[in-house]
Amino acid sequence: MSAYIEVDYQFPAGVDAQRQAQAIAIGQTAGSWDARFQHREEQLRGHLAEVRAVHDLPEGRHLATIRFPAENVDGRMGSLLTMIFGKYSLAGPAKVMSIRLPEGYGQSCRFGLAGIREKLNVAERPLIMAIFKPALGLSAGDHAEILAEVAMAGLDIIKDDEILPDLPSAATLARWEACAPIIEARRDRTGRDLLYAMNLSGDARQVHELARQLVARGANALLLNVLAYGFPMLEALAADPEVNVPIFAHPALAGAWCAAPDHGFAYAAILGTAMSCAGADAVLYPAHYGSLPFPEADEQAIVAALRARGVAPVPSAGVHPGMLDAILEDYGPELILNAGTGIMDHPMGPSSGVLAFHEGLERWQEGASLKLSDLPAGPLRAAVEKWGAA
Amino acid sequence: MSAYIEVDYQFPAGVDAQRQAQAIAIGQTAGSWDARFQHREEQLRGHLAEVRAVHDLPEGRHLATIRFPAENVDGRMGSLLTMIFGKYSLAGPAKVMSIRLPEGYGQSCRFGLAGIREKLNVAERPLIMAIFKPALGLSAGDHAEILAEVAMAGLDIIKDDEILPDLPSAATLARWEACAPIIEARRDRTGRDLLYAMNLSGDARQVHELARQLVARGANALLLNVLAYGFPMLEALAADPEVNVPIFAHPALAGAWCAAPDHGFAYAAILGTAMSCAGADAVLYPAHYGSLPFPEADEQAIVAALRARGVAPVPSAGVHPGMLDAILEDYGPELILNAGTGIMDHPMGPSSGVLAFHEGLERWQEGASLKLSDLPAGPLRAAVEKWGAA
Repeated sequence: MSAYIEVDYQFPAGVDAQRQAQAIAIGQTAGSWDARFQHREEQLRGHLAEVRAVHDLPEGRHLATIRFPAENVDGRMGSLLTMIFGKYSLAGPAKVMSIRLPEGYGQSCRFGLAGIREKLNVAERPLIMAIFKPALGLSAGDHAEILAEVAMAGLDIIKDDEILPDLPSAATLARWEACAPIIEARRDRTGRDLLYAMNLSGDARQVHELARQLVARGANALLLNVLAYGFPMLEALAADPEVNVPIFAHPALAGAWCAAPDHGFAYAAILGTAMSCAGADAVLYPAHYGSLPFPEADEQAIVAALRARGVAPVPSAGVHPGMLDAILEDYGPELILNAGTGIMDHPMGPSSGVLAFHEGLERWQEGASLKLSDLPAGPLRAAVEKWGAA
Repeated sequence: MSAYIEVDYQFPAGVDAQRQAQAIAIGQTAGSWDARFQHREEQLRGHLAEVRAVHDLPEGRHLATIRFPAENVDGRMGSLLTMIFGKYSLAGPAKVMSIRLPEGYGQSCRFGLAGIREKLNVAERPLIMAIFKPALGLSAGDHAEILAEVAMAGLDIIKDDEILPDLPSAATLARWEACAPIIEARRDRTGRDLLYAMNLSGDARQVHELARQLVARGANALLLNVLAYGFPMLEALAADPEVNVPIFAHPALAGAWCAAPDHGFAYAAILGTAMSCAGADAVLYPAHYGSLPFPEADEQAIVAALRARGVAPVPSAGVHPGMLDAILEDYGPELILNAGTGIMDHPMGPSSGVLAFHEGLERWQEGASLKLSDLPAGPLRAAVEKWGAA
């Protein structure tokens, strides 16, 4: 039985959606052919896509559903994105709203949220993740100092800022060598591991080499700016048995791919479907409660797409303890909560930033109120006094 | 002396451009820091970007110029794109209009137009490039048959369609093995080489392996969908001494990155600046005379950016011999003219498609008219009768 890839394209008012859908179905597959290729008629026809439906949307927009034969692509994201929107992206306004792939398509995550929980030995509650700040200008030793503070307060995961590449002034391997003893000490003292998602950079070969070197030296998680480095980079790392650690996917550049109303892709198609079918174990995205203007519907669709493949949703950007009630009410505890300033800029210091999250999660598990007026003095109250509640 | 990276951001009406420019200059670099980091004050300050100017544009838009220290990035595209627009792309409408890099930044092309001319032993006139059509459904033998037709008519370069990946039903290596003898025979008979830019696919490691295998077996050019596979993939191929052949960069997905009025990037920033600083030898883009609705100003800016680094401009999409006059008048002969249907669908067959281009180029070199009424019977006249003049 043949497998298919179904894609929904949205066209703005004024575009002949039926005609454009036909242009995609033919132009992005076998194209047209003449009598010279009659001996290949059957093969050629087998590669054509088919317009399944064209629906009216509000404001004169249309949604066209096109079904492509899965055999047109190699099962990976590079050829898939090129087929569904490569040349056509240049043909006029259109936005890819949804990509439905055959079950198990692509590269499945090796760990996902369940595997990350297992590594950390934390069931049930959301995991707590911090970001090294400031992003640039710290030495490896500075990183180790910061890590020591938050590690002993019970942090689960920390990551580099996505803009920190492997620089002569801040070598990635040196940062790991400085931080590894802190993680080891925490494990020795508490029996609990701490993941450090280290940012990858360089050209594609350097990225892969850096990942292997880091893992060979004991690094236990990686961070990749997937849209700047390419889905094929994520796929290669996720497929490599030598890079056997969770990969955190960062959404840098996602706005360039997804924020325009009538061009590019819907956020969930990229940060949800494509990320989860290219091997990401955890995917960061802007929480709509946070500091970036992100639509709630997009957030919901991303979370659904990630969870369908076991990938950890990581709400990010302006996350602080005052949001716990709202996030947990909307999405439940199967999350990694990623707070940058929401931990590092806690008025009592970064370790209190971690403690504030733990306090909030414990109150939530006990069914206790998270309202400011009900909070006792301490890290959580100080956080909510500073940042408010969502 | 410090080197800088200058970026122009365009903001739509209603956005406080001064404030957003400040947010980029700080938020996309060191961020803010508190007293705990006083011992790093100097290093942190050295990473901050600076707002150089904010200008008014028509329709209430603004253009802000921001200068980043070049030491914030590792000299490659992945970290550069992440720094200048990674998280900020999610912060609201803004478009990156121009990226000015230090001289020699990044990965320079190994061949460029001059090197490709040398390989083909063709000086002065524009090079002629064709595309295998139909894109999918042909056997390796079919490809060899098509190639034989156009090779003997004097074609310079041929490429795969960008949607053709390495498929079980159409293995890339098998295609090369079938086509290599045709290229050899042409070289033996005419002394002139023919480049075949083969499309790369797979995950990042597979792409690189495929490139090496192809080159090891004698393949003489490669095609990469850079925006689907990532600039770091292009950089890695261009830096690898084992992949010592010209790399043709395809603009698939460029509309998703660049077509929106107030989001993403200007076409020239991506298809011009970024491609030429990531190692492409030749870059395809939609010719504004052609079948895609491409703005002439963007085409001009792309050509200028490519030529500044010796990279070959490759006007594409609906190019046919009737356009020669206009293209050569606007851009001169330092081009690779890429025609798909404009060669393969010539009424007298693909070889006449190639002959029509040669005929047109010869007339142009002699200063003869390219008007239909002045053309003698033959391939060029048949082409202009079918497709008209630009």
